[in-house]
Amino acid sequence: MARIGGRPLRYMREAGYDGRILPVNPNRDTVQGIPAYASIAALPETPDVALLAVPAEATVQAVRDAAQLGVKNAIIFSAGFAETGDPGRILQDEISQIARKSGMRILGPNCLGVFNPASNFYGTFSVVLDNEFIKPGPVGIVSQSGAYGAHIAHLARNRGLGISHWITTGNEADLNLAEVLHWMVDQPETKVIMAYAESIRDHELFFAALEHARRNEKAIVFMKTGRSDVGAAAAASHTAALAGSDAVFDAVLRQFGVFRAASTAEQLDVAYACARGIYPRGNKIGIFTMSGGFGIQMADDAVANGLDVAIMPEDAQEELKAMLPYASPRNPVDATAQVVTDLPLMAKYINAVVDKGGYDIFVGIFGTGPGSSSFAEPLRKTLLEATKGYEEKVLALTMSAGPDVFRRYEANGFIAHEDGSALIRALGALTRFRRSFDEAQETAPVAPGEKISIEASALSERGAKDVLSRAGLTFPQERLVAPGGDIGAAAGEIGFPVVLKISSPDIAHKTEVGGVAVNIRTAEEANRMGAEILAKAVEKCPSAYLEGIVVAPMISGGVETIIGVVQDPVLGPVVMFGLGGIFVEVLKDVTFRAAPFDVAEAHRMIREIRGYAILEGVRGEEPADIDALAELLSNLSRFAAANADRIESIDLNPVRILPKGQGVVPLDALLILRQGGQ
Amino acid sequence: MARIGGRPLRYMREAGYDGRILPVNPNRDTVQGIPAYASIAALPETPDVALLAVPAEATVQAVRDAAQLGVKNAIIFSAGFAETGDPGRILQDEISQIARKSGMRILGPNCLGVFNPASNFYGTFSVVLDNEFIKPGPVGIVSQSGAYGAHIAHLARNRGLGISHWITTGNEADLNLAEVLHWMVDQPETKVIMAYAESIRDHELFFAALEHARRNEKAIVFMKTGRSDVGAAAAASHTAALAGSDAVFDAVLRQFGVFRAASTAEQLDVAYACARGIYPRGNKIGIFTMSGGFGIQMADDAVANGLDVAIMPEDAQEELKAMLPYASPRNPVDATAQVVTDLPLMAKYINAVVDKGGYDIFVGIFGTGPGSSSFAEPLRKTLLEATKGYEEKVLALTMSAGPDVFRRYEANGFIAHEDGSALIRALGALTRFRRSFDEAQETAPVAPGEKISIEASALSERGAKDVLSRAGLTFPQERLVAPGGDIGAAAGEIGFPVVLKISSPDIAHKTEVGGVAVNIRTAEEANRMGAEILAKAVEKCPSAYLEGIVVAPMISGGVETIIGVVQDPVLGPVVMFGLGGIFVEVLKDVTFRAAPFDVAEAHRMIREIRGYAILEGVRGEEPADIDALAELLSNLSRFAAANADRIESIDLNPVRILPKGQGVVPLDALLILRQGGQ
Repeated sequence: MARIGGRPLRYMREAGYDGRILPVNPNRDTVQGIPAYASIAALPETPDVALLAVPAEATVQAVRDAAQLGVKNAIIFSAGFAETGDPGRILQDEISQIARKSGMRILGPNCLGVFNPASNFYGTFSVVLDNEFIKPGPVGIVSQSGAYGAHIAHLARNRGLGISHWITTGNEADLNLAEVLHWMVDQPETKVIMAYAESIRDHELFFAALEHARRNEKAIVFMKTGRSDVGAAAAASHTAALAGSDAVFDAVLRQFGVFRAASTAEQLDVAYACARGIYPRGNKIGIFTMSGGFGIQMADDAVANGLDVAIMPEDAQEELKAMLPYASPRNPVDATAQVVTDLPLMAKYINAVVDKGGYDIFVGIFGTGPGSSSFAEPLRKTLLEATKGYEEKVLALTMSAGPDVFRRYEANGFIAHEDGSALIRALGALTRFRRSFDEAQETAPVAPGEKISIEASALSERGAKDVLSRAGLTFPQERLVAPGGDIGAAAGEIGFPVVLKISSPDIAHKTEVGGVAVNIRTAEEANRMGAEILAKAVEKCPSAYLEGIVVAPMISGGVETIIGVVQDPVLGPVVMFGLGGIFVEVLKDVTFRAAPFDVAEAHRMIREIRGYAILEGVRGEEPADIDALAELLSNLSRFAAANADRIESIDLNPVRILPKGQGVVPLDALLILRQGGQ
Repeated sequence: MARIGGRPLRYMREAGYDGRILPVNPNRDTVQGIPAYASIAALPETPDVALLAVPAEATVQAVRDAAQLGVKNAIIFSAGFAETGDPGRILQDEISQIARKSGMRILGPNCLGVFNPASNFYGTFSVVLDNEFIKPGPVGIVSQSGAYGAHIAHLARNRGLGISHWITTGNEADLNLAEVLHWMVDQPETKVIMAYAESIRDHELFFAALEHARRNEKAIVFMKTGRSDVGAAAAASHTAALAGSDAVFDAVLRQFGVFRAASTAEQLDVAYACARGIYPRGNKIGIFTMSGGFGIQMADDAVANGLDVAIMPEDAQEELKAMLPYASPRNPVDATAQVVTDLPLMAKYINAVVDKGGYDIFVGIFGTGPGSSSFAEPLRKTLLEATKGYEEKVLALTMSAGPDVFRRYEANGFIAHEDGSALIRALGALTRFRRSFDEAQETAPVAPGEKISIEASALSERGAKDVLSRAGLTFPQERLVAPGGDIGAAAGEIGFPVVLKISSPDIAHKTEVGGVAVNIRTAEEANRMGAEILAKAVEKCPSAYLEGIVVAPMISGGVETIIGVVQDPVLGPVVMFGLGGIFVEVLKDVTFRAAPFDVAEAHRMIREIRGYAILEGVRGEEPADIDALAELLSNLSRFAAANADRIESIDLNPVRILPKGQGVVPLDALLILRQGGQ
């Protein structure tokens, strides 16, 4: 074994790992004093897990030997695989194949391994444990990057957090982040998971893991990097061009109730708050302060994070006023600095806030006081007394003090932070987790729709609408008039005014070839304009197959929106929604959801756009038919999920959302099929 | 002297203050061993400053005695003034009057005082210095809240920052935050100022202080609380209703180049970075990492903070590749973990990045390495060697280590932070300070416009346009036709189609009384509709004075915007700008500037709105006349500043911004005069 192999052995021996350890080293009789074997094949028994720390070239054979011996799990530390280029990638593919054939599960290569403090298992060569182990606890860590995983483990230790499992997945030749996440959710000792990813290998496993987590009320706090990567691939459709992958990732994490951390510090802050395991049912926060300014600042932060700084009930205010006449008992409850001199009074005072305020969350602001050794313990006892019987509430405080003081307060169940803004962000996250857990309980998992057979290799607008109609979408009644047919008569049947559109599977962008005429008011005009459109199409697209002219009713009114489906390179089929026109083009006011999703999720999606108020009706307009819109989005998502192998993208643009009760009308449909799919 | 008076004395004696201290105490012969005087009048000489720590009731007399003795400065610690209600307010007003009459400057009451570590002057009873003093240094602190001021002083000390002056202003009976800020800018030892305010007493002094700061290249890092205070006052005009005071405050701080911190932690982070005194000319950032994931994360943060993660020049990349073939030399420059084992190579490598990259800012990511006592010093020397000769650049790094290690790196000029995201936010702030300093140098201070005499007590639309025309605004040619006059003839002279509008100083909202008719195409129609409008006005507003009917040309096209002036209760006259219609109503996409401001600032204001791209031209539209818009905004601001005593609010809604070169057209004007002003 190479040098990096020595560290796991040393860690496990120092920690007192009580399983058997069997070193393998062809050149030495003993390793750290333990008898070593010359080869994997020479092992006297089959180990539960093999740690492999040999050069890349020798790794494939070692993996094969381990599989041969019947080893069920292997961790490969070695680098020199896909991350170095094509020759390494070939070696890595061989490892993947051995895993698939043998059933042996492999972590890595190019990973820092695994550790589990509760069982003293240290299958890692990370230096983060060199000076100090990390205690067992409720936080699971899974990271594609070993360095990042080590960094947050280090920060968690500094914060006094214990770790249940620490798993780095490296190049993911076999096991990937999603599978590890799913497994971690099932570990009873894990209450919250910190995850780090640069990319996702299998979006279906990933979504399944996220859904599994929220159905089991395990919070995931996610760091996803690469958000500034603009992904410049030229896209065939309008929707695809708008779907910058990071905006999609962001929306999808919201969809599954995952907290996406904006910084590593925030990831730690939120995980720390989650580690208490209390997710408040409501968002009412009571703030206790002895200095007005801090109270105002925290109230500002609370409002910005969706918390409700509800005013104390009148009778409770009277009670507080009776105790401290000069204090301000509304909320923030400002007891003023004088209360510091009378801790029994402070206990009574805070107890009244907690007891009478009806708050889901209580936060006390204590500044540098607890940093004084003579004040830290009396204050802690005061707070314990004041909050006795309310241990199921979220009890938090801000203070500046040494780590030992923090640990003592935390041991009593308080969430303690030096920075009020960071604390409030984390408390806001707790309420959002609660909401997401509840939403998961209220709904069944969403199934994809039916698979729809599409014979053609390309679809006209009419063909696209036919396919989507079978998926439950409804379109305005239209007539296709073959070349030479009487367009005017068809228009008369539809009812004037009408729209004329060229129909061809080979013409995706009809307006660009003069293929659309609107507001046609007579049969004569319809026939003349129809002929003109056909002539232009022949001239501009001589090789296009022309089905004829589609005659459609002119539909105006309602709110113009754009709806689409795009294949995200990482997250698979996603549905996009936004308001049309300038909103989508200038403000990029769109949002996304991974397909499939139900109507309730569609409603949440719709409410996310900044221009949502327009759908509710502004400037005297009637409210739009948001229910019908949500149903369309959900139906489209189920179609997109069931037919992801055939669909490259869908544009419904514009879709008019008519007033409540009158439905939604997609006026145009563009469905681009996957090349090579079937 | 009461107990709180003892602490300043103790601090100054412990610190070795070398001035004379004269205790006053009617009941004791000595205080802390120093001979005490029975009264202020009994003092043997006139002190430079009086510290007053007597009960509120006795304070007024003590202030009077000090003024009598010719004392030039007093600091009042005592509480019990305006913050407790009306009786206290009366006492405080007496103190204000004594200050005004005597010329003695007073800080407080209800403040924690002042300290200046360099001169060992501790005119404060804050407990923050109980265990440890704070070293002298480049950071000035001014805070309305004593508790907040003490808190950030404590955090600054923990961060190794030295303080030049620490001043708390309390109730501001005389000296206010703005005056202290202005004074602090002039102190050569102060490089950056941390300020905390809950409100601003004199906006003109405040703006003057902010302008003074940026012209002197002193960064101000501001915490302003009360941002969630919705300020529900019903407002007479549309503009006023949109001007939530916090949005105004936010915009005005941007206007003056002040950094508004979102949290106390951010305030510290930015002040810490500013304390180096290096504000980079450009925003190019080079990132060095040994782990890809950290590099990506930092690049994401850099882009989000307006920094340019520019790719290394090709030849420099070649040079780096020659040193480390497996490394990634683009930017982030990822040297991979192997470079840790060869520090001379690392020095050469980093030197090449700093030397060849052309970056304004260099950041190295070092993780937990410097936390190891054997690695901290070798790495520090490596970085010193690598960056020799580039001390004028911003050199920053992230690491996890003890405070002593941080202090050693900082002594070499490195900005060091544990959290990469927080570091990048602070570095982004440095570039914005540089830009603001430069902008201040490029422009002369803006003077208000001319004072315009307004005789009337209320103005019709026509009257408002007359007044504003004198301020340099231009309006479409219009005709007022008195009741009974020939409206059709006037319309013919203007040219059809025209708009008719009731003209009355007593009717602010014309459409609400049926006072507007648009798209009038004939003389007959004009006369008929004009008569109808007048009849309706007589019916609905029987007591209104009717000047007649204004005939105006129909102007369409261009981009619809809304422009207004409102008297912010705290910041005085501010100009608002936004796109019209749904943009302003649904998206609240508006911004503000304190009046007056110049055309360059107006351009910055215009660029702030989210819908700015619409003015540049989208969907094939021509770009709008942004220059003319900026000129209108600046003219309006100068008018608003000069006539603030007369103007309650102005609404120009809509204002059509015509295509470039064709100007701007305010179609309507509503000018509401101040009640009681003249």
